[in-house]
Amino acid sequence: MNYMETLGSRAKAASHAAGAAGTAQKNAALAAVAQALRDNTAQIIEANGRDMDNAVQNGMSKAMQDRLRLDASRIEAIANAVGKVIALDDPVGEEVRGWLRPNGLRIRQVRVPMGVIGIIFESRPNVTVDAAVLCLKAGNAVILRGGKEAIHSNTCLVNVMRGALGSAGLPADLVQLVEKTDRETAADMMRLNGYLDVLIPRGGAGLIQAVVRQATVPVIETGAGNCHVYVDATADVDMAVSIADNAKTQRPSVCNAIETLLVHKDIAPVFLPAVRKAFDAHEVVIHGCAVTQEILGGSVIPVTEEDYAREYGDYEIAVRVVDSVEEACRHILTYSTHHSESIVTRDMANAEYFLNHLDSAAVYVNASTRFTDGEEFGFGAEIGISTQKLHARGPMGLLALTTTQYRITGTGQIR
Amino acid sequence: MNYMETLGSRAKAASHAAGAAGTAQKNAALAAVAQALRDNTAQIIEANGRDMDNAVQNGMSKAMQDRLRLDASRIEAIANAVGKVIALDDPVGEEVRGWLRPNGLRIRQVRVPMGVIGIIFESRPNVTVDAAVLCLKAGNAVILRGGKEAIHSNTCLVNVMRGALGSAGLPADLVQLVEKTDRETAADMMRLNGYLDVLIPRGGAGLIQAVVRQATVPVIETGAGNCHVYVDATADVDMAVSIADNAKTQRPSVCNAIETLLVHKDIAPVFLPAVRKAFDAHEVVIHGCAVTQEILGGSVIPVTEEDYAREYGDYEIAVRVVDSVEEACRHILTYSTHHSESIVTRDMANAEYFLNHLDSAAVYVNASTRFTDGEEFGFGAEIGISTQKLHARGPMGLLALTTTQYRITGTGQIR
Repeated sequence: MNYMETLGSRAKAASHAAGAAGTAQKNAALAAVAQALRDNTAQIIEANGRDMDNAVQNGMSKAMQDRLRLDASRIEAIANAVGKVIALDDPVGEEVRGWLRPNGLRIRQVRVPMGVIGIIFESRPNVTVDAAVLCLKAGNAVILRGGKEAIHSNTCLVNVMRGALGSAGLPADLVQLVEKTDRETAADMMRLNGYLDVLIPRGGAGLIQAVVRQATVPVIETGAGNCHVYVDATADVDMAVSIADNAKTQRPSVCNAIETLLVHKDIAPVFLPAVRKAFDAHEVVIHGCAVTQEILGGSVIPVTEEDYAREYGDYEIAVRVVDSVEEACRHILTYSTHHSESIVTRDMANAEYFLNHLDSAAVYVNASTRFTDGEEFGFGAEIGISTQKLHARGPMGLLALTTTQYRITGTGQIR
Repeated sequence: MNYMETLGSRAKAASHAAGAAGTAQKNAALAAVAQALRDNTAQIIEANGRDMDNAVQNGMSKAMQDRLRLDASRIEAIANAVGKVIALDDPVGEEVRGWLRPNGLRIRQVRVPMGVIGIIFESRPNVTVDAAVLCLKAGNAVILRGGKEAIHSNTCLVNVMRGALGSAGLPADLVQLVEKTDRETAADMMRLNGYLDVLIPRGGAGLIQAVVRQATVPVIETGAGNCHVYVDATADVDMAVSIADNAKTQRPSVCNAIETLLVHKDIAPVFLPAVRKAFDAHEVVIHGCAVTQEILGGSVIPVTEEDYAREYGDYEIAVRVVDSVEEACRHILTYSTHHSESIVTRDMANAEYFLNHLDSAAVYVNASTRFTDGEEFGFGAEIGISTQKLHARGPMGLLALTTTQYRITGTGQIR
């Protein structure tokens, strides 16, 4: 048994205990976790300090350093977030469907924990607690593999959580950290068939693609967002400007921000100058098609095919004028990463066409794509945003961390 | 673009048309498929004849030849099965959940087609039509990769279906056959990311494991079944014998047949001789633990650790006497492939314990494991039996071939 198999078998054994635990016991364990985080604040900050020292020595960027840093208020925020998960409804045990067969067999489809969940993530140590706590609430064991930049912080956080679980009568092995942060161990984790029921990568496109390519265990692909707003001919211009501006500039680095703006030709002469005014406040760089260039003039960079496929993640946008909602949908079907798309319109038929012809995880009418988020959807917390079609799509809350089981009761039926 | 990418891009384009098609149009297309199968019976038999000639020349076993053979009555049965799929409810469009957010956004989770489904299967040509028709009913495009032994039959069946789709106003590319049956093309199919939304292998353990190991597209693992019956201390002996015998001998080659029988020590002296009598009618070979050997005597082969993990698929069984329902569950958690398990008992607490502590796809009380089947569950048809936890578990009907999409309607909401 190699290192990852040892972790896997411990997780599996622990998951059997967690699966049978009731909501009260799981919530008590989560409360113990929150309390332990508060009680060990000094120790956590000390461990994080060692990561921060290394970060400075290794010349980590200020922005990355800020993501890595833990202080008392951030630890308090993490503990508070645990409290919010305690307040969420426990999805385990829900009877999803139930029916009686003509032969008298009663079939119930019941929601049960997934089992063992693997999370591979990058340097933010708050993810260590957030992800673990969601997995625990849904009755799962979790194996966490964070970045080596945060290894001291993560080791301390995981030890604090393990201690709290033990004190609440649940196996400490429900939460384990992969302490070997080399690539070979990560590759072993991606091929931990028989132990890992699902692996969820959280991080940049490079990490996610590496997991998709290498993993033999089931994976939920998250993240990449080439999102669109389409401004239809009948759109309210003020609303369209407000939505396009919000979707592009409120937080351009996130996956539910838009990268391309599609505009119906009839509204383009009015809408484009108006949206440019809004964009100018953030110095948004515009890559425009020929018609866009004609309407907006010199400052527009000619757009390329590559631009339409690009996730800028910055104050930069592609703009294309189209002839119809059909052409807008064809563009989106060609270039989208199937995350979030929005139409701004007053035309009900076009709104329905847009909803029915796109295969993205979230499609909007007259709202910003920035709402594709577990909190905004009302899930209370989120483990990631799935852009694949299998199992879970869009923001993933607790439900995505469960599966179902058929329970069949008979009186001696045979075939 | 390589061969598989060409098929993939055609399928994707076609899937966009199918996704927006209504139930009436899809059903009309399926009716056209059924009619075309009947109208082209002679042509299909002729193509199948070429496969059968090759099979004879290549020394294919009689049993395999029988699975490959198509005649008029089998083609009529295939066409009839299409009729049954027409009669099934269309899952597409169902509003799974819907709610209103405090900011006025209305969020609906709507069932939509998966998109493009790949099926890799072995030599039975009826799967070609069965699988294609289920995928079509759920609004998907399908790419079929059958065995080279059935290539003439499959080519003919797919051409007949494609013609029927065209005549019903749907794109022929909703159904495509991978005509290159070499391994490299199969490997390309397993890595067709960006085109294939899911790949479902249907066949033996070797095929399924090859797909799980090689695929980078999402896979639904099907099939392997190391299933158990546990006879509890309070079981009705006649019922227990009937269930154990049915689960083992009614059709031992299928995945929902049992491989190991667990027996509570208090009932073993009465139950084991009774079940042996039933097993003797099929000359079932018994691999037993020490207590089983003691009770049943000489004809019992001493059981090994490997036997407990084995899927015999034949008139052969492992038998172990246990001290409690807890020990039975520990055994199952150790050796099961998480397919189907059953307890025979009159003790409600033990029945609940069994249901709550096992993580198999289907768990039974007082019924044969042989009911884990799409038809028996009332799904009308089945694309396979999932033994993984992601997306679908147990018998997969039309629902497993769909995903969901969030549709959000607002009045200009921004963040």
